[in-house]
Amino acid sequence: MSSVIVTDIVRADQTTIDALAVHGVATVHEAMGRVGLVGPSVHPVQQGARIAGSAVTVLCWPGDNLMIHAAVEQCQAGDILVVSTTSPSLDGSFGELFATALTYRGVRGVVTTGGVRDVVDLRAMNFPAWAGAQNAQGTVKATAGSVNVPIVVGGAIIRPGDVVVADDDGVLCVPRGEADTALTASDARVEKEAAARAAYLNGDLSLDRNDLRGVLADLGVRYVTQQEYTDGDHRRRDLDHD
Amino acid sequence: MSSVIVTDIVRADQTTIDALAVHGVATVHEAMGRVGLVGPSVHPVQQGARIAGSAVTVLCWPGDNLMIHAAVEQCQAGDILVVSTTSPSLDGSFGELFATALTYRGVRGVVTTGGVRDVVDLRAMNFPAWAGAQNAQGTVKATAGSVNVPIVVGGAIIRPGDVVVADDDGVLCVPRGEADTALTASDARVEKEAAARAAYLNGDLSLDRNDLRGVLADLGVRYVTQQEYTDGDHRRRDLDHD
Amino acid sequence: MSSVIVTDIVRADQTTIDALAVHGVATVHEAMGRVGLVGPSVHPVQQGARIAGSAVTVLCWPGDNLMIHAAVEQCQAGDILVVSTTSPSLDGSFGELFATALTYRGVRGVVTTGGVRDVVDLRAMNFPAWAGAQNAQGTVKATAGSVNVPIVVGGAIIRPGDVVVADDDGVLCVPRGEADTALTASDARVEKEAAARAAYLNGDLSLDRNDLRGVLADLGVRYVTQQEYTDGDHRRRDLDHD
Amino acid sequence: MSSVIVTDIVRADQTTIDALAVHGVATVHEAMGRVGLVGPSVHPVQQGARIAGSAVTVLCWPGDNLMIHAAVEQCQAGDILVVSTTSPSLDGSFGELFATALTYRGVRGVVTTGGVRDVVDLRAMNFPAWAGAQNAQGTVKATAGSVNVPIVVGGAIIRPGDVVVADDDGVLCVPRGEADTALTASDARVEKEAAARAAYLNGDLSLDRNDLRGVLADLGVRYVTQQEYTDGDHRRRDLDHD
Amino acid sequence: MSSVIVTDIVRADQTTIDALAVHGVATVHEAMGRVGLVGPSVHPVQQGARIAGSAVTVLCWPGDNLMIHAAVEQCQAGDILVVSTTSPSLDGSFGELFATALTYRGVRGVVTTGGVRDVVDLRAMNFPAWAGAQNAQGTVKATAGSVNVPIVVGGAIIRPGDVVVADDDGVLCVPRGEADTALTASDARVEKEAAARAAYLNGDLSLDRNDLRGVLADLGVRYVTQQEYTDGDHRRRDLDHD
Amino acid sequence: MSSVIVTDIVRADQTTIDALAVHGVATVHEAMGRVGLVGPSVHPVQQGARIAGSAVTVLCWPGDNLMIHAAVEQCQAGDILVVSTTSPSLDGSFGELFATALTYRGVRGVVTTGGVRDVVDLRAMNFPAWAGAQNAQGTVKATAGSVNVPIVVGGAIIRPGDVVVADDDGVLCVPRGEADTALTASDARVEKEAAARAAYLNGDLSLDRNDLRGVLADLGVRYVTQQEYTDGDHRRRDLDHD
Repeated sequence: MSSVIVTDIVRADQTTIDALAVHGVATVHEAMGRVGLVGPSVHPVQQGARIAGSAVTVLCWPGDNLMIHAAVEQCQAGDILVVSTTSPSLDGSFGELFATALTYRGVRGVVTTGGVRDVVDLRAMNFPAWAGAQNAQGTVKATAGSVNVPIVVGGAIIRPGDVVVADDDGVLCVPRGEADTALTASDARVEKEAAARAAYLNGDLSLDRNDLRGVLADLGVRYVTQQEYTDGDHRRRDLDHD
Repeated sequence: MSSVIVTDIVRADQTTIDALAVHGVATVHEAMGRVGLVGPSVHPVQQGARIAGSAVTVLCWPGDNLMIHAAVEQCQAGDILVVSTTSPSLDGSFGELFATALTYRGVRGVVTTGGVRDVVDLRAMNFPAWAGAQNAQGTVKATAGSVNVPIVVGGAIIRPGDVVVADDDGVLCVPRGEADTALTASDARVEKEAAARAAYLNGDLSLDRNDLRGVLADLGVRYVTQQEYTDGDHRRRDLDHD
Repeated sequence: MSSVIVTDIVRADQTTIDALAVHGVATVHEAMGRVGLVGPSVHPVQQGARIAGSAVTVLCWPGDNLMIHAAVEQCQAGDILVVSTTSPSLDGSFGELFATALTYRGVRGVVTTGGVRDVVDLRAMNFPAWAGAQNAQGTVKATAGSVNVPIVVGGAIIRPGDVVVADDDGVLCVPRGEADTALTASDARVEKEAAARAAYLNGDLSLDRNDLRGVLADLGVRYVTQQEYTDGDHRRRDLDHD
Repeated sequence: MSSVIVTDIVRADQTTIDALAVHGVATVHEAMGRVGLVGPSVHPVQQGARIAGSAVTVLCWPGDNLMIHAAVEQCQAGDILVVSTTSPSLDGSFGELFATALTYRGVRGVVTTGGVRDVVDLRAMNFPAWAGAQNAQGTVKATAGSVNVPIVVGGAIIRPGDVVVADDDGVLCVPRGEADTALTASDARVEKEAAARAAYLNGDLSLDRNDLRGVLADLGVRYVTQQEYTDGDHRRRDLDHD
Repeated sequence: MSSVIVTDIVRADQTTIDALAVHGVATVHEAMGRVGLVGPSVHPVQQGARIAGSAVTVLCWPGDNLMIHAAVEQCQAGDILVVSTTSPSLDGSFGELFATALTYRGVRGVVTTGGVRDVVDLRAMNFPAWAGAQNAQGTVKATAGSVNVPIVVGGAIIRPGDVVVADDDGVLCVPRGEADTALTASDARVEKEAAARAAYLNGDLSLDRNDLRGVLADLGVRYVTQQEYTDGDHRRRDLDHD
Repeated sequence: MSSVIVTDIVRADQTTIDALAVHGVATVHEAMGRVGLVGPSVHPVQQGARIAGSAVTVLCWPGDNLMIHAAVEQCQAGDILVVSTTSPSLDGSFGELFATALTYRGVRGVVTTGGVRDVVDLRAMNFPAWAGAQNAQGTVKATAGSVNVPIVVGGAIIRPGDVVVADDDGVLCVPRGEADTALTASDARVEKEAAARAAYLNGDLSLDRNDLRGVLADLGVRYVTQQEYTDGDHRRRDLDHD
């Protein structure tokens, strides 16, 4: 591994980032076309936090947090620290002392495929974390890694400077160059969802709003009575004509 | 797959269902003879909710929630929506808009082997959910499935109209035809447990209340001192005479 | 298996145990040199509990809690019940009735690789639990096991009388004979961490406080600009000279 | 649990069963419309075996194989023993002595969500097994269960007398009443696949044979050059117009 | 962690060890009373190997194999190298060069909770391995650990000098002090199994040989016809009288 | 998701690719500095295959293989098809008919995070596969994805045209631009390993060859006798002076 610390990453516009935070993960993810999600292997350590920020990425050796120490210096206000390891590890490489140092710098939270510890303190400090585990297992500072290189975090590729959005629904990566269009699309989606919500509060069915009755028919889905289902005629016809 | 939507399922008596909800999962499960549990792969998304209702079952394709749209129309007051997929998938096929539409119809909650999203909203709406994951990953509406057919949910078979009980201990399926006897047995169990609780608050031992000292002796369990254990005589005798 | 119940285990000094509880898992684990952790497969069932106590160990057959019944009698004030199974099982072998009986005896909590149920009640009783699952699945009382023998709990070996510390960061085993030195080392660590915390609140970097810049340089970690990284010169040099 | 041993189950026609075995799991599964698969949590213990037979189902308590002893007596020539547990367990409840007794009765193999042991012997005997694990962990004979009741095996519901097909691609359940139509559909599928295979050996593309170019176009999939992709114009248009 | 290399461990009698190897894991495990098994998380890398030897234990940091280098020197003819990590890691810390060095010293194989690589070479060399994974992921040599201390390997505690037995059914630890009694018990079990095998080849049922019909009756297991089961009378009686 | 099929990817030099195949995964991975590995979640479906080729990447929707149909057309001689899904799925989206079409085009194998089926046929055809599962579960052709975009495969990022190396130790991605230096470094490593092998065959220790005795001493690892270890003096000193 070529071990480097990249020092001058480019970030997205802060106003855009903050607006994406308001929308939250599910909305932005949907608006982007359903890509970029880390997935449920990284879960929220607290309830109700919703943040967005610029990714400062860290690639550590398993059982080792040396590069997190190096990464702190690269962080600035509005950032989110994003940590992965060269092979899977749930060790508790991040805790309250790091959160203290990052809070001083205005960092908004941490996302890690590994473990976090001092979780009582993290919650008390309102320093939000998304992690692979809550795990006291300590780490050493003996092996090289990198800061601000592209990393794999669950099912997502995160590059330094990408916008990370995180809340109780998970963690999402918006590529830096797509932040503006993602915001526009999210605004549009929110408007569309508000209309749908009003309709559902009025008793409308999504089957009708989304014109899905035709889709069901085209796919061969049939409405049957319990008696017809038990008799199984529909099933035989399926297999005969498939 | 024969894709059908069964429209006229039979439900259990609502009074019985409500009484089962009061007992909760652990009591009813035990009273039924310890069967019908979904198991811990499906977990509560909130804390403290305890509900029971009639199952409206949905079988979706992975990454697809078309059939949930179809299922909403089949739901009525007192129901619980129960979703599984034809192969394992934790995608977030259920969110706040569905919960809004189901609340309108008086549905009590959702149980899914897949993922739910908008969990902050679900909690705020008091719409309880039990799910395989909290996951923003969105789904499409492109592939057929079924509504109100028997489905596998974790380790349980759930048929439409079965009574589903759910709380912080998990999710339980009571077959529709056994709801009454399950209630009677649960009532009896609660009474028996109250007597046990009173005894334990008084310092009694379950070893004595349940006549387990004889069971231990019959099984060859011996009381030894630490010294005897360290010396290991007991162990050699075991192996000689087994 | 030689099935025994050891009746006269030796415990650590209660004052030491109580002082370890104040420090918590992450601090004591680190002070001991990062050993003895159960790991994240056993998680806290509640938030914010922090206890320490003497281990009364139980080895059960999967799906069976007979030996927990036997273990209650061996517990005294200040103990923690620690349960494992002869092969992996997440069945709910522990619930509110056991917690009631253990509370009567002054037991501080339960740690189990298996499942717990009645979790609403356990939280209401302030009886803390760390478990492999929340799971209503009931158990039988048919097969022998042992009480107060050494057991494997996640990644840790726990012997009867060892000090168990548990909080939101996990569960830690401090061997009985090392409790005093662990406490001394924890006290020292807390002092050291307080100094670090003060420095970080002042903007100091752990890179400097821990003299890690030299470590990075020795390991060949280079600071590069984004442009240099993209050009990849650094990488070619690595591969040439490794 | 109501513990029963059902003694007079009905089986499918043996000629149909044998013909399904020739087709194998992937073909029959596809022909049936992609339902009934156990899934990869149960894997083949050997390579190259392909069998079909009538299911004799067993539901055991975890860590206990009492009901397998009872099930042997219910087996006859052409059957497959299918074992599940009331909660997940990988204990080695099946080994060479059972295989010996079942071979005497003409049973064709075993499918279990649990573990098998003596796997060297099973392979030497040509007694095929599909299991959740290879695991020497032994079991007891202390707790009741059932024989020949419907059970959940991975993602499938298997009823006594259903046709089970198993090979290196997994384990499939064909409901007894659908065996004939499944066979007809499988025959048709094999013919269709043979034509496809001949075409592909000739260089044809499935894109053309299955008329998928229109599907791609309808879904908005665009063919672009590497340069266009890097420039990202296509992506901006997506987000603008979604 | 106190990092030590213990240099003068005591081993069991080699004749006993070799005799245990002949019996294999399932037999010795059963004869010992079903304890000491590592479990299926550590699987055989080859087929058909069956060995026993004295454990030289290694505790490594995740992602680091420094202590395996140190352990080689402590190995002698008849030993098995047994490796675990301080927290879970599947990195490939063991490969062909280690196998070469260990073969020179007469070591019989390796058991590791981590990964092995060069598996084609290991199989060609007939150097058997049981591992948590086949994984090329390389490791560093930067962090301390221990050699010849007690370690947790899956669900088993293994102490240096214990007898390890390994084959296609898994890995078993026989405590050094119990090797002789384990052998005696295994001999007895083999004889008993031979008699059972002969009986089964003659068509006898284990239900009769093991007097299990009475056990079933005592547990309330009833023989019913399919019609009685479908009618469900048996079930109602259960719930009424449980 | 912006759904595209990139048609004119650039590949590495075929001579370099073929030379990397000879070295195999473990050697090239180590020579590159231990990066780029997919990890053990994707395993070989056969034994003994070792290939390298240019990646044609496919990103599918779970339960859907439409884009594999599109990808076949983009493949040429010397390629390896590499498939991932937008969220985790083990469905059997690849089988013998695809292998037939790819063989016609000179493709060397398939790597997929999902499932493969017809594995008996794949082995008979000598078409090697590395997959997340062997799984008959069929897929549909209903949802868009992409071909020849960067994808996440286990822990690795694979870009179209990167060199993929695969054998029994796993799957490795060598970025296209680093193929030449990776080959040079692999050649050097093979030479170094040959010298080490010769030394170990002669009884040398890696402790000495790698100058690790000093490393151990610097890290505070002490050689002790069993008696000293049992007495535990070393441990107290550790905790006092840590």
